[in-house]
Amino acid sequence: MSSNSPAPSQGPSLKLTISYDGTNFSGSQRQGQRRTVQAELESALAQLFGEETGAIFAGRTDSGVHAAAQVVSAPDRRPNLAESRIGLALNDLLADDLAVVRVERVGTGFHARYDAIWREYRYRIWCGPREPLAARFIGRVANRLDLDAMSAAASDLQGTHDFAAFAGGGEGVPWSDRKSAPRGSERTILCPDVRRVRPWWRECDGTGELLEVRVVADGFLPRMVRNIAGALIEIGRAKRDPFWIRELLEQRDRRLAGMTAPAHGLTLWRVGYAGDELLAHGARQNDEE
Amino acid sequence: MSSNSPAPSQGPSLKLTISYDGTNFSGSQRQGQRRTVQAELESALAQLFGEETGAIFAGRTDSGVHAAAQVVSAPDRRPNLAESRIGLALNDLLADDLAVVRVERVGTGFHARYDAIWREYRYRIWCGPREPLAARFIGRVANRLDLDAMSAAASDLQGTHDFAAFAGGGEGVPWSDRKSAPRGSERTILCPDVRRVRPWWRECDGTGELLEVRVVADGFLPRMVRNIAGALIEIGRAKRDPFWIRELLEQRDRRLAGMTAPAHGLTLWRVGYAGDELLAHGARQNDEE
Repeated sequence: MSSNSPAPSQGPSLKLTISYDGTNFSGSQRQGQRRTVQAELESALAQLFGEETGAIFAGRTDSGVHAAAQVVSAPDRRPNLAESRIGLALNDLLADDLAVVRVERVGTGFHARYDAIWREYRYRIWCGPREPLAARFIGRVANRLDLDAMSAAASDLQGTHDFAAFAGGGEGVPWSDRKSAPRGSERTILCPDVRRVRPWWRECDGTGELLEVRVVADGFLPRMVRNIAGALIEIGRAKRDPFWIRELLEQRDRRLAGMTAPAHGLTLWRVGYAGDELLAHGARQNDEE
Repeated sequence: MSSNSPAPSQGPSLKLTISYDGTNFSGSQRQGQRRTVQAELESALAQLFGEETGAIFAGRTDSGVHAAAQVVSAPDRRPNLAESRIGLALNDLLADDLAVVRVERVGTGFHARYDAIWREYRYRIWCGPREPLAARFIGRVANRLDLDAMSAAASDLQGTHDFAAFAGGGEGVPWSDRKSAPRGSERTILCPDVRRVRPWWRECDGTGELLEVRVVADGFLPRMVRNIAGALIEIGRAKRDPFWIRELLEQRDRRLAGMTAPAHGLTLWRVGYAGDELLAHGARQNDEE
């Protein structure tokens, strides 16, 4: 039940894909009496199974961060219940801002965190006036950003680097997201990307612009995407030039890297396992304006 | 100040385009002590102008219904203040779920309601599991709907008809949205349309489908779009055949028409005035999957 001992489950496992609006959660991981995604999900599982079971999350999300498709593993205590029934039963028990969107039986020993090969986060930045219909899900800046400069800078994130400059605000040693020995702050980023996308909540009339930062990596340090988004925003504002990212990667000093973008703009988009296609979105250029 | 006497303002007018998340409002129009968009906007205008002024809304929206671009006219009491300053000042005074997205000076006698030529509403229907990241803005059905049947049925709405079968529940006589004599329940619908659009809150993985009903008309009866969406959903479920819309238009009896779709799926999308392009979205087919 503790988030500190996520041993792979013995026996058959369930792979749950869940979605949550992070606004009213104190993050994904259990923290005493606070309202967390893990506490509410484990409580629903306990009601369904009639016994307490630990749920292991593929990625930790901070307070206010959303998940479109977080993946969770849990022991399968009701092997005779159809997957769809398990999903319906859990959703009946969960609050409106947390839902199970898919249930799969995945055999013995599946571990949502150790078995994940990549994770994708998206950070949405609205450059324009206040937008009540999207405010929960976007970071906002008042003025246009230089997309070309941001894209050039983002491409420097590609590959294996020491991301210490983008790690945290003071949580201490980054948690290891692999079974193997801790890798310190080295991670591998694939296809970092900033693109202009169409706002979903109103007609695009030129009074603003929606940018989306997409980052896929084998793992993330605490607040890494929000720190990357913060640095890219400073570059987009021309407060820094595009080579700044490269400098930060070389200097590996968090104190030099500037602001952390607010939590509510960030969504854990997907988690990939063996056999999952990495770039479902790569072939889809039609979401750009 | 009263919503019952919306006389065109004397003197120079402001055209305010506003957006709101309708979840926590008791609709757009002032209603005693309830929290309404009109009451909050008029209160902000009074603070800015130092005197009370009435705000006239292009369209009335029910409790729970959203607006992407509602249009409001108000007398211009601060002719020396730049439009952008007025917007910023009002937004400082308004709550997070209501914002002014544009301010324009439009000369004498502009009337947001009488001068509007068309209004566009969009009703979003998610066919699939619970979706916490979109729940505030979608109506939901558990299973797939027959899009072809719904599209065929929607096209029968095109043109000038008596929409009595789609009017209200029980508010009595529909309000007139034209200066001219009340037209009863006759309205003209342009380009009614149901299309499949990409969900904005997660990767489209086949576990659900987002449909959007778009209706442009010269005016709407109370709950007309929600009643249309409700009828189209019944057709999409194959509980009714596509010719049902035509029958309802002929019978003009609300009691035959079935369910009213829930308010939270509906958004007042745009309001058109002389010179506005009707089909900004018509040229954009790339928002379909």
